[in-house]
Amino acid sequence: MSSASESPDKATANNPLKHPNSRIAVLTSHFTATMSSEKDAALAAAAAPPPADSPTIFDKIINKEIPAKVVYEDDKVLAFRDIAPQAPTHILLIPKIKDGLTGLSQAEERHCEILGQLLYAAKLVAKQEGLEDGFRVVINDGPDGCQSVYHLHLHLLGGRQMNWPPG
Amino acid sequence: MSSASESPDKATANNPLKHPNSRIAVLTSHFTATMSSEKDAALAAAAAPPPADSPTIFDKIINKEIPAKVVYEDDKVLAFRDIAPQAPTHILLIPKIKDGLTGLSQAEERHCEILGQLLYAAKLVAKQEGLEDGFRVVINDGPDGCQSVYHLHLHLLGGRQMNWPPG
Repeated sequence: MSSASESPDKATANNPLKHPNSRIAVLTSHFTATMSSEKDAALAAAAAPPPADSPTIFDKIINKEIPAKVVYEDDKVLAFRDIAPQAPTHILLIPKIKDGLTGLSQAEERHCEILGQLLYAAKLVAKQEGLEDGFRVVINDGPDGCQSVYHLHLHLLGGRQMNWPPG
Repeated sequence: MSSASESPDKATANNPLKHPNSRIAVLTSHFTATMSSEKDAALAAAAAPPPADSPTIFDKIINKEIPAKVVYEDDKVLAFRDIAPQAPTHILLIPKIKDGLTGLSQAEERHCEILGQLLYAAKLVAKQEGLEDGFRVVINDGPDGCQSVYHLHLHLLGGRQMNWPPG
């Protein structure tokens, strides 16, 4: 499940047939085409979490096996546009080497360096994108956090007024 | 101006008299009585941004001049409960030494270490708070990001299903 499914599909949100919103329904669907929201994707991912080092769609992006609109890259960090943007600018930043970081909750002290580099890269990309009026950085962890891909990633959102609460 | 007024308190949000401890009341004295949301507070803060090294309410919390429900502290990071929580668990994590970090957009390469330590501390606090089902970390920058206090801070939210988009 990729951020491709981070979809605010309001039209089907209240139709249980079109939008099975419960964990049971999601499980029943076996992650099929009915999965239209980030929340559903997160619950499904949580229902069958991959082993820590199993590949995700992000590995394919890192390896150039599938295309992505890359906006920034250094030796440690890759940043590319979310294909289901929730703001005029919506970019994902990921560590190029996962090193067990399926999510922030799995961080160990040795990960402090890459965590800092990811946040600093978010600042650099925000500047590059011209987000002088501000931006928001979001990290989702686990089903409650709406995490859908189990490879740590930061969301950088800007280009519009963000609201409060943050989801 | 603190996260004090990041308030979901709909009943009193528009009445600063009933909500005397919030930034709403503080802002009211300087701005207008209609300023009731984080967004308003952020815009107000942006309209009169303080110099980079001017004290904020967080300095008073660090110096124990005003009370806070501290949940975690080490030599670099302080974490305390947001007094206007947007989730059952809502904690702010800040660097104890601001060092020019009014916001993430002001980060320099030398800040990578503290940025990493803040994210790692968020993980530690999430575990301490029992957020096994997940959580969300949010950093607001500037008016578009809804930043209200110009001392870098991370929001850690959990204990409920977070939604998408993130504000």
